[in-house]
Amino acid sequence: MLAMMGRIGIQKIFLGILLIDVLVIRSVAADNAKDLKIWPLPVSVSYGHDRLYLGNDLELTTDGRMYSDASGILKDGFFRLLHILNGDHVIEANTFHFINSSLVIEGIHVVIASSGNELQHGVDESYKLSVPMQGNPSFAYIEAKTVYGALHALETFSQICYFNFSTRVIEVHQVPWTIFDKPRFSYRGLLIDTSRHFLPIRMIKKVIDSMTYAKLNVLHWHIVDTESFPLEIPSYPKLWNGTYSSSERYTMAEAAEIVRYAQRRGIHILAEIDVPGHAKSWGVGYPSLWPSINCTQPLDVSSNFTFEVIDGILSDISKVFKYKFVHLGGDEVNTSCWTSTPHISNWLEKKGLNESEAYQYFVLEAQRMASSYGYDIINWEETFVNFGSKLSRKTVIHHWLRGGVVQQATAAGFQCIVSNQESWYLDNLGTTWQEFYANEPLMNITKPKQQALVMGGEVCMWGERVDGSDIEQTIWPRAAAAAERLWTSYDNLAKNSTEVTERLAHFRCLLNQRGVAAAPLTGRGRAAPVEPGSCYKQ
Amino acid sequence: MLAMMGRIGIQKIFLGILLIDVLVIRSVAADNAKDLKIWPLPVSVSYGHDRLYLGNDLELTTDGRMYSDASGILKDGFFRLLHILNGDHVIEANTFHFINSSLVIEGIHVVIASSGNELQHGVDESYKLSVPMQGNPSFAYIEAKTVYGALHALETFSQICYFNFSTRVIEVHQVPWTIFDKPRFSYRGLLIDTSRHFLPIRMIKKVIDSMTYAKLNVLHWHIVDTESFPLEIPSYPKLWNGTYSSSERYTMAEAAEIVRYAQRRGIHILAEIDVPGHAKSWGVGYPSLWPSINCTQPLDVSSNFTFEVIDGILSDISKVFKYKFVHLGGDEVNTSCWTSTPHISNWLEKKGLNESEAYQYFVLEAQRMASSYGYDIINWEETFVNFGSKLSRKTVIHHWLRGGVVQQATAAGFQCIVSNQESWYLDNLGTTWQEFYANEPLMNITKPKQQALVMGGEVCMWGERVDGSDIEQTIWPRAAAAAERLWTSYDNLAKNSTEVTERLAHFRCLLNQRGVAAAPLTGRGRAAPVEPGSCYKQ
Repeated sequence: MLAMMGRIGIQKIFLGILLIDVLVIRSVAADNAKDLKIWPLPVSVSYGHDRLYLGNDLELTTDGRMYSDASGILKDGFFRLLHILNGDHVIEANTFHFINSSLVIEGIHVVIASSGNELQHGVDESYKLSVPMQGNPSFAYIEAKTVYGALHALETFSQICYFNFSTRVIEVHQVPWTIFDKPRFSYRGLLIDTSRHFLPIRMIKKVIDSMTYAKLNVLHWHIVDTESFPLEIPSYPKLWNGTYSSSERYTMAEAAEIVRYAQRRGIHILAEIDVPGHAKSWGVGYPSLWPSINCTQPLDVSSNFTFEVIDGILSDISKVFKYKFVHLGGDEVNTSCWTSTPHISNWLEKKGLNESEAYQYFVLEAQRMASSYGYDIINWEETFVNFGSKLSRKTVIHHWLRGGVVQQATAAGFQCIVSNQESWYLDNLGTTWQEFYANEPLMNITKPKQQALVMGGEVCMWGERVDGSDIEQTIWPRAAAAAERLWTSYDNLAKNSTEVTERLAHFRCLLNQRGVAAAPLTGRGRAAPVEPGSCYKQ
Repeated sequence: MLAMMGRIGIQKIFLGILLIDVLVIRSVAADNAKDLKIWPLPVSVSYGHDRLYLGNDLELTTDGRMYSDASGILKDGFFRLLHILNGDHVIEANTFHFINSSLVIEGIHVVIASSGNELQHGVDESYKLSVPMQGNPSFAYIEAKTVYGALHALETFSQICYFNFSTRVIEVHQVPWTIFDKPRFSYRGLLIDTSRHFLPIRMIKKVIDSMTYAKLNVLHWHIVDTESFPLEIPSYPKLWNGTYSSSERYTMAEAAEIVRYAQRRGIHILAEIDVPGHAKSWGVGYPSLWPSINCTQPLDVSSNFTFEVIDGILSDISKVFKYKFVHLGGDEVNTSCWTSTPHISNWLEKKGLNESEAYQYFVLEAQRMASSYGYDIINWEETFVNFGSKLSRKTVIHHWLRGGVVQQATAAGFQCIVSNQESWYLDNLGTTWQEFYANEPLMNITKPKQQALVMGGEVCMWGERVDGSDIEQTIWPRAAAAAERLWTSYDNLAKNSTEVTERLAHFRCLLNQRGVAAAPLTGRGRAAPVEPGSCYKQ
């Protein structure tokens, strides 16, 4: 007994504070979540009061029976975890010298139930993360159905680790942990716009990395638009003459690299080829796509060549963009260039179509072509609002503009994605993080059948007045507020946004520590801090 | 002949464009620099019209006779070059298949004349970079006196490489190159302020990396000030109770890591411990340093403890900060808390000192202590203005406020650093890049002896209203404009800032490609782009 007491005494000297307390199980609820610093909040969390230390040589161990990690997705995710843990601080304590080795977490043991690593819509992203107190040596444990759930678990684990400035080692507090988690919505997106401002590949990769911290899982890449066409299209190589400059371009190999980079992090890339509007840049290389030299949008509906080009684009991108969906745009179509251009108005007359019917014809033809390449289609809401009954029933309606669209579309049996501009447009600097947090995708949708049709939502980083110099702070932390709305169980969401201020501030500072230029919480979007102060209070 | 012609024909098919032209030697002058895209502009540049291709497996070869690179500084610099070249684009061509292998640059051959790798003030940073047309295989050649000159050469080399969207390989245009280069000033600084806002280590490292792109070589780390004291001081461990929060701190090991990270990139870290003003935060842990609980600045000049603490700080930092200089501040000293606090005014009376003499006494005592640790001292200009004749002759005067100080200080034989606030304060968002570019450190200093006393200059990123979320775009590109003023030979500088707009825009976009959030050129400091457009035109 005396020897044991002596050992405990020595441990106290070596290890500093060692708290032993009665195990307290807490189910997470919004008011108890004050103690938690995890963002977004998991489905179910129980934690205690003990502390473990992260070993200097943390290792990854796996079950290996089902999931072999042949492509190294899990291993790379683990290395990214180590990079995050080791890059923020300098660890000075040598955990090999700790007398009580059971207090040292030596590794993370990951068991993944499925053998494949295909990332597709609706993939199981659930996980269980546990950090038990017992163990000699101690381990953290992850169980997941797929490797993508395991990646989420590693992210959550990174958020319960702390560098202790006294012990100079990374610690896990509030042990033992048992976390069950899965997302509320399967589609949790962020739109970026590389037409209004070109974004270098490295910047896009940084955005993808930052998305993983908040468990966002779809990067909606609005690649081309009126102002520029930066993507290589091998079938029609003059299309990218519509770039701003010869260097502000993406080759197909680079697009494939972005898809690969994202996929290995559990993120889908949704390519958008917006037609028939928002397409002026297409005509720089192929002027015949314009109704006329003076009337350059929408794309010429009367011309077979227009649809040959669209088909070529879809054919090329289908080789690279493997997400189940493609976004065909279809928003803000001003048809006056059709009716005012003689050869097109003649064509309309011959076909017996008015402008609105021509718009419908265009969208349906584009849908048909995209389907032939195996895609399911997402379209902006105007297509539903104008000719919903004619759309392919599998169309996903992307709501951005008019109130009531989500109710109407789901009532008509369509799936929906929510991006209502008054709440989830990141380029609206006046929209506060509280408003981002409070925006409920199922607002006014009460029937379970309709609720089930809402795939999720997306915050939109339109690029008219944003480029690589300020995109990160315009996205974060407001996108994080929406990310919790999309991940966390409805009952665990704060009813009043201000309740999560401290936890979001903590997440914002975590982003800064990881090199992500997340803006202060106070003020408008991307506001600079107005005075000296702590990261946690601004 | 026919066979040769046939081979040339095949080469043209395989390699695309192959231009052979008469060799044109151009010495760089500001107006010819329009063709160059290097920033900052080198001393002497000759180039041609030919093109070489960068081999897929670019290798580093060295002479080895003098410089062994035992600590891997050169090798790491080379890997950073590869990371930059390969990370921006996806290389698709296989240079091993090029028929004419003499067109492929297989490696960079580096010869360094000195054996050591000590980084100290005045280290030789010169280099010669040549890319000859002849060679089978072709090589780029670097000669430098020190490894730090070689690092600059690698940076310049990275700026003459281009990803060609047709050949899908990195090319070097305008071959053959012969570049001789060295800095005009040996001190080319950037100040960061981690007291007004804590900057995570990762952010500081990003700033250091970005400095290397513009060949800045001193990071003036204004570590502590009124608002917070984030640095661990082992001799007086309560000093960092003055942090904003328990996590917004740097351990000494982390400070050492920053020094190491910078040193391996050729950058000195200048630590500033500003006394006796700007020091309120010191008293959070040691309230006796304050004149009184209600009057908390400057540090109590009457107390031995004050100087014991300063001595402890200097002792601790001297173990980590190995730059020849330490900055002791001494600016903006409001002595009213001395005269209004009884025990101090009594002490002044006893010592026969007025407030001004007490200020002088304080600064000289701090200088004496810093000297005892082997440091040379930098002080802000008020010390010179108020008691220049009493300062140690080796003091370097840091000009920021009053016109004429540099002329007066150099006339009195002092070395100077220039940071005049109306031109080189980055937190002044209204100061344009043109004004940064045009600010001449030797303005009105005509005598060669006095000119030689101007060590260089520094742009200051004060942190009152800047944090990790917006520091990069507040620094860049305006700091780059100053970086050229400090590096480039006076005769090669543009007499009118607007002449370098295109080249600076190119450098800004290069920074973006490398993941540095450099702001558009147009508008105020860190202004967002006002509309869609090309990086090169905003």
